[in-house]
Amino acid sequence: MPSEHQYRREIVAFGKLLHDRGFVAAMDGNLSVRLDEERILATPTAMSKGRMNTSDLVIVDREGARIKGRRNVSSEIGMHLLIYDLRPDVRGIVHAHPPTATGFAAAGMALNEPLVCEVVIGLGSIPLAKYGTPGTPELTDALAPLIPDYDAILMSNHGVVAFSDTLEHAFMKMETVEHFAQIMLVTQLLGRQQPLGNAELEKLMLARSKYQGSTSAATLPLACTASKSGNHHPRRQAESESVTSASRRRQLGSRVP
Amino acid sequence: MPSEHQYRREIVAFGKLLHDRGFVAAMDGNLSVRLDEERILATPTAMSKGRMNTSDLVIVDREGARIKGRRNVSSEIGMHLLIYDLRPDVRGIVHAHPPTATGFAAAGMALNEPLVCEVVIGLGSIPLAKYGTPGTPELTDALAPLIPDYDAILMSNHGVVAFSDTLEHAFMKMETVEHFAQIMLVTQLLGRQQPLGNAELEKLMLARSKYQGSTSAATLPLACTASKSGNHHPRRQAESESVTSASRRRQLGSRVP
Amino acid sequence: MPSEHQYRREIVAFGKLLHDRGFVAAMDGNLSVRLDEERILATPTAMSKGRMNTSDLVIVDREGARIKGRRNVSSEIGMHLLIYDLRPDVRGIVHAHPPTATGFAAAGMALNEPLVCEVVIGLGSIPLAKYGTPGTPELTDALAPLIPDYDAILMSNHGVVAFSDTLEHAFMKMETVEHFAQIMLVTQLLGRQQPLGNAELEKLMLARSKYQGSTSAATLPLACTASKSGNHHPRRQAESESVTSASRRRQLGSRVP
Amino acid sequence: MPSEHQYRREIVAFGKLLHDRGFVAAMDGNLSVRLDEERILATPTAMSKGRMNTSDLVIVDREGARIKGRRNVSSEIGMHLLIYDLRPDVRGIVHAHPPTATGFAAAGMALNEPLVCEVVIGLGSIPLAKYGTPGTPELTDALAPLIPDYDAILMSNHGVVAFSDTLEHAFMKMETVEHFAQIMLVTQLLGRQQPLGNAELEKLMLARSKYQGSTSAATLPLACTASKSGNHHPRRQAESESVTSASRRRQLGSRVP
Repeated sequence: MPSEHQYRREIVAFGKLLHDRGFVAAMDGNLSVRLDEERILATPTAMSKGRMNTSDLVIVDREGARIKGRRNVSSEIGMHLLIYDLRPDVRGIVHAHPPTATGFAAAGMALNEPLVCEVVIGLGSIPLAKYGTPGTPELTDALAPLIPDYDAILMSNHGVVAFSDTLEHAFMKMETVEHFAQIMLVTQLLGRQQPLGNAELEKLMLARSKYQGSTSAATLPLACTASKSGNHHPRRQAESESVTSASRRRQLGSRVP
Repeated sequence: MPSEHQYRREIVAFGKLLHDRGFVAAMDGNLSVRLDEERILATPTAMSKGRMNTSDLVIVDREGARIKGRRNVSSEIGMHLLIYDLRPDVRGIVHAHPPTATGFAAAGMALNEPLVCEVVIGLGSIPLAKYGTPGTPELTDALAPLIPDYDAILMSNHGVVAFSDTLEHAFMKMETVEHFAQIMLVTQLLGRQQPLGNAELEKLMLARSKYQGSTSAATLPLACTASKSGNHHPRRQAESESVTSASRRRQLGSRVP
Repeated sequence: MPSEHQYRREIVAFGKLLHDRGFVAAMDGNLSVRLDEERILATPTAMSKGRMNTSDLVIVDREGARIKGRRNVSSEIGMHLLIYDLRPDVRGIVHAHPPTATGFAAAGMALNEPLVCEVVIGLGSIPLAKYGTPGTPELTDALAPLIPDYDAILMSNHGVVAFSDTLEHAFMKMETVEHFAQIMLVTQLLGRQQPLGNAELEKLMLARSKYQGSTSAATLPLACTASKSGNHHPRRQAESESVTSASRRRQLGSRVP
Repeated sequence: MPSEHQYRREIVAFGKLLHDRGFVAAMDGNLSVRLDEERILATPTAMSKGRMNTSDLVIVDREGARIKGRRNVSSEIGMHLLIYDLRPDVRGIVHAHPPTATGFAAAGMALNEPLVCEVVIGLGSIPLAKYGTPGTPELTDALAPLIPDYDAILMSNHGVVAFSDTLEHAFMKMETVEHFAQIMLVTQLLGRQQPLGNAELEKLMLARSKYQGSTSAATLPLACTASKSGNHHPRRQAESESVTSASRRRQLGSRVP
């Protein structure tokens, strides 16, 4: 079990990596770690996430009240608290604006084509949440229905949030979202897509259980591909509605560790 | 209050970052800091902004005459002096050629779609100034009408200039311009845009006042979106004319700190 | 002859470079070196290839059974073993997901246009293997027909594998694949391609023998260009079928050193 | 006057930068410096230009015969020798394959739109040389007519060569070529270009003489824009023919320092 100071250094290091990779500009983005049942360690508002010191971080309780730290906590702390409430298995969260994935989110398109097998294994598919004003209940209301079933979510006209059992794994899921968005954009530019069919997706579901690193909450994107295997849709409609389909839902209780 | 030497190191560090990020090539770009009411510390002409030493910088007076330094000051010092004259709140300026944003400037397109909420909060919208020959009054004449109302401006067939209360904040605004240009380009490539409507923009205006980091002079892009919320315009005309609309103007005097 | 420890450091260094370049995200990718006739040194499953230590690596025998190491070996070790079996000249293998090349692989397009002379010299052309579920014989069955004749292969809906006489050369071939995919994508975006004709390709074949660094197994892409020199095909069909044409085949035995 | 060893370190440093920037892959690219009237210091063939040591470099005479060094000199040394012969003012040469500019070269398109004023000041325009097999007189024959009038040249199906009075300036011109290719590609993707007209180009010609850093041999691209100012040509034909127009020629003798 890492110490609080180790968690602080981890947040500072991944914040710097977010900035180096161009996943945030200016003062964008925020990161947090669940220290224990009562305390969340989170990044402050109004500073670059690429130039933080460990002493800039803030500790809040489960209602977002500041326990420790001289800075104000991120104005998006409500989103973090909601995720920790709905997902007892989550201990690390990364929110950023990687440019390609955020372009999809500004175009109103989910990243739900099964185009790359290791993305299917790692994340299933990446849904698009409706727009909600940052720092308000609108935003958390838009995310709430998706949090139980996914580990990474596009936020319309905003960016991406990813979460996992550790901050490192949450960062990796953020990396995968942008990496996959780049790949999907290339297929759009080439005007051709060759998505995996259902038979291949079912085999991947079996293979998935063999991957030690896979801790995704998301089921495979079988539902969303049922009617389109083998077709090419270079300019298809957004499909965020499909992510709420009953076949992809799991009961929250079944995932508690 | 940082010392002159600290400002010199800051300019050298952000110059290096501009080059590392690919925001300038060759000897492009220039940076400056307002040291006090009479003196501007600026980068020299004819050297890479990624390989400067603190002793390469030049101090000029408010008319651009050299007070200190052996090198010649940037040939674009007139642009810096104009901004410091028109904006008493500004103490740091960054001019560069980030490739995506400069592509928009060479296409004759402003970055004024409200596609990403945190860009709206941080910058409002980013107008396009008419072309003017560098180092001549043409260039400053083209920028003058926009400087009071914006913190970052695309310069036709040239690049971008960003300014703020500190050099760090000016650099952050430059980062946001390029980051947003990348996102907007992705939406253009996908052939779909889902801009925020006026109701959402009004809520953002309220939210903006809560952000400590926001010191933007720009009002929100309400005017430019009045007639187009919900439409998709993958190949729309440049809209630089809209930035001069009366509804977005504020009196200069009201911003003096 | 480098020591085992030198090979371990080489794998760690090229793993880090893969991650720094954005050629892998999360826990993607794997690398290996043939230590001797009986032993393969390979990367483990379930960790970032950008943050490995030399002690994380695993040694397996020619059937994939672990000889040394506490971690589990990559679930794609079967692909590595097949390549070492079919290509006695190969001593280093890199598998990754560089985003542009993987976009072509997800679009169902090979990288077989002769657009850049030094890519023709270094790699010939880069075929597209059929999709096969990772970690199963389907994947190795899809690759087997291509391994004798090529040094780098696109894997449908998956990524790229490259191999050579050393790990450094295998990494270089991976670099060339992504670099060429970027160039080919630009030509697709410009809507124009000016491929080399057969007369030029024949001259390159002669020039190739003069390049010390060239150790490619691949013959030049003469067959695939026979009918199209001078034409422009901005949106052409995938041509993976052409890579099996008889004219490009060589007998495996003739390449054994 | 730097020592031979300083030149060696400069070549190693710019070689590393070429690789870090993705301007070369594998063993691509070569660099050289004119040490004196009789000796050229150049990079070797068959190794990565990102991992050279100063002792890997080779000294050749004006006919390309090796004077010093254990490695073989670049197979493209003939191109370097030709440039040093035709341009007595040149002391540094960089050849690389920056991916965007090389995409234009593989599409058969010159970079000759006057879209960015500082590119016009620094380079004029960047012509496209015909294809010639590397390492043969074909290649040098294709370049010879362009070398007197330009400081950077696209080479069809190959890459870019840039040269100047120092190696640093040659590297800067290479940077500018790729930077401008990125900007021009963005305008192509947006489907809009707003090129400078002749009146603006004439003013830039006057401004150019004021820039200390400008040592370009190239005249401004007036000829190529005479008939198209104000038009938009998103998919125009290659215009390499225009670069030989009489109006852009200068006598070689007039540039000898």
